Amino acid sequence: MFFFLDSIGTFVFAISGALAAMNKRLDPFGIFIIAFVTALGGGTLRDVLIGHTPVGWMENLDYVYIVIVGTLFAIFFRRKIDYLRKSLFLFDTIGLGVFTIIGIEKGIATDLHPIISVAIGTMSASFGGVIRDILCNEIPVIFRKEVYATACIVGGVFYFTMLWLGFPSQLIYVLTATIVIGIRLLAVKYSLRLPTIQ
Amino acid sequence: MFFFLDSIGTFVFAISGALAAMNKRLDPFGIFIIAFVTALGGGTLRDVLIGHTPVGWMENLDYVYIVIVGTLFAIFFRRKIDYLRKSLFLFDTIGLGVFTIIGIEKGIATDLHPIISVAIGTMSASFGGVIRDILCNEIPVIFRKEVYATACIVGGVFYFTMLWLGFPSQLIYVLTATIVIGIRLLAVKYSLRLPTIQ
Amino acid sequence: MFFFLDSIGTFVFAISGALAAMNKRLDPFGIFIIAFVTALGGGTLRDVLIGHTPVGWMENLDYVYIVIVGTLFAIFFRRKIDYLRKSLFLFDTIGLGVFTIIGIEKGIATDLHPIISVAIGTMSASFGGVIRDILCNEIPVIFRKEVYATACIVGGVFYFTMLWLGFPSQLIYVLTATIVIGIRLLAVKYSLRLPTIQ
Repeated sequence: MFFFLDSIGTFVFAISGALAAMNKRLDPFGIFIIAFVTALGGGTLRDVLIGHTPVGWMENLDYVYIVIVGTLFAIFFRRKIDYLRKSLFLFDTIGLGVFTIIGIEKGIATDLHPIISVAIGTMSASFGGVIRDILCNEIPVIFRKEVYATACIVGGVFYFTMLWLGFPSQLIYVLTATIVIGIRLLAVKYSLRLPTIQ
Repeated sequence: MFFFLDSIGTFVFAISGALAAMNKRLDPFGIFIIAFVTALGGGTLRDVLIGHTPVGWMENLDYVYIVIVGTLFAIFFRRKIDYLRKSLFLFDTIGLGVFTIIGIEKGIATDLHPIISVAIGTMSASFGGVIRDILCNEIPVIFRKEVYATACIVGGVFYFTMLWLGFPSQLIYVLTATIVIGIRLLAVKYSLRLPTIQ
Repeated sequence: MFFFLDSIGTFVFAISGALAAMNKRLDPFGIFIIAFVTALGGGTLRDVLIGHTPVGWMENLDYVYIVIVGTLFAIFFRRKIDYLRKSLFLFDTIGLGVFTIIGIEKGIATDLHPIISVAIGTMSASFGGVIRDILCNEIPVIFRKEVYATACIVGGVFYFTMLWLGFPSQLIYVLTATIVIGIRLLAVKYSLRLPTIQ
C-alpha cells in the first residue's frame, strides 16, 4: 500500500515536471531530466546530505522506470491532460504526504534529531520542485507563493508529537498524511498563501 | 572564542540571506531557506564533497537555531537594519575570515593537499552566497565584481606559508583572519574589484 | 593514451567554460570557477551521487592544474581562439566520448545496474555544461537543442551490448568513443536536434 502510494506520487511528480519542461519548450532529453529531478530530486538531495550513497534510485530502478513512463505519458497525452488536472493535483498532494513520511523515517533511521528529520521529510517532498525551477531558470515557486513545504513541516511536527504520545505507527502514518494533504488542499481551495515580507 | 566568532558569522550571513530574499519578495519559508543556504550552504557543499556526512548542521543543531534567530531578526528589524549596516558588514567580514579557517582545518583533517584545503576554505566561506544567488535567479555576485573569494584564497595561502614556517597555531589563526578581513575591508573601502575580461 | 585523452578533454572543457564566462563578463575568479565546473562538474556530481568521496579532483590534483592552464589559455588567447574553433570542437567531442566511458566504468566498479551506469556516464560527460549554464543563469543548452547527452546514451547502450557479446575491452573503448563522437559530429554537421514538444 505504502509502495503503491509512493509510486503514484513519483509518477505524478514526473508528469508535473514534464509539463513544466514542455512549457519551456525543452527537447525530449530535457523533458526527461526535468521530470526526473522533479520526481526524485528531493530524495536524492536528502540521500546525499545524510550520506546514504549510492542514492536511492541507483539501487532501486523501479523509480527510474516510473519516471520514464510518467514522462512518456505526459508527452503523449499532453493535450488531454487538462481533463485530468484535478486527479493529477490530488495525486500530487498524496505524493506530498507520502514523501514527507518516507523522508522523516529515513531521518529517524539515520539517528537524526526530530527537527532535522522533519526538515529532511520536507526536503524529500518539496525540493524536487525547487531543483526543477532552478533548471528552468525560475525562482522556486515554493519560496514565493505556494503553501507546500509548510504543509510538510506541520505534518512532520504532528508525526513526532504522535510518536511521543505513543500512537501506533499505522495511525501515525494515516494521520500525518491526512494533515499534510488536508493543509495543502485547503490552501489551494481558498488560495491561501504565506504573506510576503518587504 | 572561536565558536563565538563562528556563531556571529553564521548569524550575520543568515541576516544577509534573509535581506536578499525579502528584496525578491519571497514568503517566510523562502526567506528562511535563503537565509539557511547563505549561512550554511558553503559548509554543506564542503561536507558533501569531502564525504563528511551527515553534513555538519544535521549533527549540531546550534547552527540551525542561529539561522532561525537570524531570520526572525532580519524580518522584525528589517526597517531598522540600515542603521546597522556598518556593524553587519563588519561581522560578515569576520565570518568570512573565520569560515575560511574552519574550512582549511577540515581539509587538513581529511588529509587533503594544501591547495585543495585552501579551495575548501574558500568554498566554506563564500559559496553560501553563490547558492543564494542561484536560488534568487541571479548570476553569483562573487563571480562578477566582488573581491570576496580572492580574500579567502590569499588568506589560505598565508595560512599554509605560516604553517610551514612553524608559527604557533594561535598566531596563524589571528594572522590569517586579519589578512582575509583586511583585504575584504580595503577592497570595499576603495571599491576595488577584479577586472572583467572580454 | 587514455589519460592523455582524458586530460585533453578536461583542458578543452575548461576552455569552453572560460569562454562562456567571459561572454557573461565575469571576473577572473568567476571565469576560473565556471571553467572548473564545466570541466569537472559532471564527474563531481557523479562521485557525490555514488558516494565516491572525497571527490576525484580532491585526490588527483592533475585535473585542477589542467583547469588552471585551460583557463589561462582561454584568457590570454581569447582573440585568437576563433582560429582554433574547429580543433577545440573536435577535442570537446573527444572529451565527450572519453568521459562517457570513464563514467560507465565507475558505475560498473560501484556494482551499479547497466542502465544506471549509462546514466552516470552521460552525467560525467555532459552535466558539467548543465552546471555551467545554471551558474550563468541560462536554461541548460543540452536540455533545449543540442544532440549531446543523446550521443552519450547511445554510446553507453552500445558499450554494454558489446560487453555482453564478449568483445575485448580495448575494442569496446574504441567503438564506444567512435559512436559518441560520430553521432555528435554528424548532429552538428547537419544541424540535427531533437524536436521540441509543446
